[in-house]
Amino acid sequence: MSQIAEEVAINLGERSYSIVIGGGLLADPASYDGLPHAANALIVSNTTVAPLYAARLRAALCGRYALIHEIQLPDGEEHKNWQTLQSIFDVLLERGCDRKTVLFALGGGVVGDMTGFAAASYMRGVPFVQVPTTLLAQVDSSVGGKTGINHPLGKNMVGAFYQPQRVICDLDVLGTLPAREFSAGLAEIIKYGPIADLEFFVWLEQHMDDLIAQERSALVHAVRRSCEIKASVVGKDERESGLRAILNFGHTFGHAIEAGMGYGAWLHGEGVGAGMVMAAELSRRLGLVNESFVGRLRGLIHRAGLPTLAPLLDDQDNAGRYLQLMRLDKKSEAGEIKFVVVEGSGKAMLHSAPDDLVRDVINACCR
Amino acid sequence: MSQIAEEVAINLGERSYSIVIGGGLLADPASYDGLPHAANALIVSNTTVAPLYAARLRAALCGRYALIHEIQLPDGEEHKNWQTLQSIFDVLLERGCDRKTVLFALGGGVVGDMTGFAAASYMRGVPFVQVPTTLLAQVDSSVGGKTGINHPLGKNMVGAFYQPQRVICDLDVLGTLPAREFSAGLAEIIKYGPIADLEFFVWLEQHMDDLIAQERSALVHAVRRSCEIKASVVGKDERESGLRAILNFGHTFGHAIEAGMGYGAWLHGEGVGAGMVMAAELSRRLGLVNESFVGRLRGLIHRAGLPTLAPLLDDQDNAGRYLQLMRLDKKSEAGEIKFVVVEGSGKAMLHSAPDDLVRDVINACCR
Repeated sequence: MSQIAEEVAINLGERSYSIVIGGGLLADPASYDGLPHAANALIVSNTTVAPLYAARLRAALCGRYALIHEIQLPDGEEHKNWQTLQSIFDVLLERGCDRKTVLFALGGGVVGDMTGFAAASYMRGVPFVQVPTTLLAQVDSSVGGKTGINHPLGKNMVGAFYQPQRVICDLDVLGTLPAREFSAGLAEIIKYGPIADLEFFVWLEQHMDDLIAQERSALVHAVRRSCEIKASVVGKDERESGLRAILNFGHTFGHAIEAGMGYGAWLHGEGVGAGMVMAAELSRRLGLVNESFVGRLRGLIHRAGLPTLAPLLDDQDNAGRYLQLMRLDKKSEAGEIKFVVVEGSGKAMLHSAPDDLVRDVINACCR
Repeated sequence: MSQIAEEVAINLGERSYSIVIGGGLLADPASYDGLPHAANALIVSNTTVAPLYAARLRAALCGRYALIHEIQLPDGEEHKNWQTLQSIFDVLLERGCDRKTVLFALGGGVVGDMTGFAAASYMRGVPFVQVPTTLLAQVDSSVGGKTGINHPLGKNMVGAFYQPQRVICDLDVLGTLPAREFSAGLAEIIKYGPIADLEFFVWLEQHMDDLIAQERSALVHAVRRSCEIKASVVGKDERESGLRAILNFGHTFGHAIEAGMGYGAWLHGEGVGAGMVMAAELSRRLGLVNESFVGRLRGLIHRAGLPTLAPLLDDQDNAGRYLQLMRLDKKSEAGEIKFVVVEGSGKAMLHSAPDDLVRDVINACCR
């Protein structure tokens, strides 16, 4: 494995695995040493990423697997549905893939979530490896074992907690990522400061320009620290019974934005960007942080190239539409929305809030 | 809980649960004591079973859950697919069911498998309870945590290992079960003898007439002993990495029959009945059991009202068609079919066999 690679361990007992971070990993056969043996492998990618990297991944794997199959999914959140998932099962069964077959998710969060759910469900579970090609997937979605698809009535409503065998974060591939998607990934990196590590928040304020310029040492630090924080949280709460929910800082509002605008219109990270401003504003109105903290967070999100104002979802009753969508959030219980709020000291918690207060926050944060 | 109820424990660490067996359990609110609290429950049943028992189950649950929703699936193996599963998610989301919602599977194996997979996947996992209304589901499919749906290219190809909170086997409901389905359930009961308990095999030879007459004490013994054997096997191998596969005695051939005839034409238990004769004949040709053992098993299957001759699946190359279908079996590895064979002493194991020998078995066992 490349000498500059760093490793973060996810400790989940017999489901433990490691995240490897560095340059040139994807095409290096050594990156795949120690993975389960099988006759078949399936590379799941999409029509955007496959032309760039599938051949390199295949070449790196061809010494390990006799038959390497490939499927290209249509690109985009709007295809994160059952029909697309079914196309993965179709290929697996048409090619006679048995239950030792190893799936490789080569792409962003959508490819990773769908490949993971396909691996969780095919013959009730086959191994899979995450090879995330977006910054967002490297620091968030490919780590932690959340897999799934969207339902017309809600995002990620159908899925499984299912851990990969390994996550390979090749930083070189970020060079081909559109700037808008790179920014969307920064949203999830920024998230880790307010919820878990104020020092990291300060570091991000100091290094945001380096990150935007994809300066290598800054990138390695940001990706590694993000994965470490996520690993620590997931290690304590694999199935999101409590603590893990703090990783959804900004996501309750963000999911409402994504769903309300129609999946794909706003990138997930963009929704989280504006959503974090809303969640911070809610925290302020609950007396947990001051105006200056909200301002600093808003400034950092803005410098990352992300929206800090949320969109109008309804001309008549915008706040009501947000509330309606948020009640479908998986953290809701018996219709009560649970928000992730922050305390300003690098800590977060779940908190409910009166509808009127939430309406005020929405009205204050929408353009 | 009713005083005559017996309990079998499934020991799977934090996923342990119990099977309760007796009369009058379904309508007794005490049967549900200790289940997780929630605002919502969803009874999943089908158009055949719901009119008979859904109201009774609802009445027994109404003291525990504020909102009890209901969905009736179309009846039959041919509906064990994604479209039907999706209809469960639709109801859950339309009714705003959160991730504490408890699902109740009221029906046979198809309802149980789909409800279990829906519970495994909805919001990445909600609790569920099995209330099996067929003999087959009581002694087999509702115990052990195998859930899933069929794919056009294979049975149970998409699913999850996901354990219920409890299994409630109410023997009274078997009174409304058609004789053909009761016989299909006997196939899975018969299975446990050759693979694990020769004494039970002998007991079944002595009590088959009592079972057919649904004599209560015989029924309690047969259901309890079946669940005990299954519990013991599943407790040692939850995810079917080895030992658990012996529960599929007769199923490799049986699945080929079901798939080859078109799902629904042969009941699962009927396929297993004829499939056990084929697997025993294969065991004999491998030198593991003698002709007398095969004859005794065939006789028992016949007395249970089950087919002992397999159907022709192809006029041109019948054995080839069987082999083609069996290569899709989940136990196959790299195209090699693994058969469950028996030794005659109440033991089973996985075994491969040359195609020619398997062809001979198929030719000898088809009508």
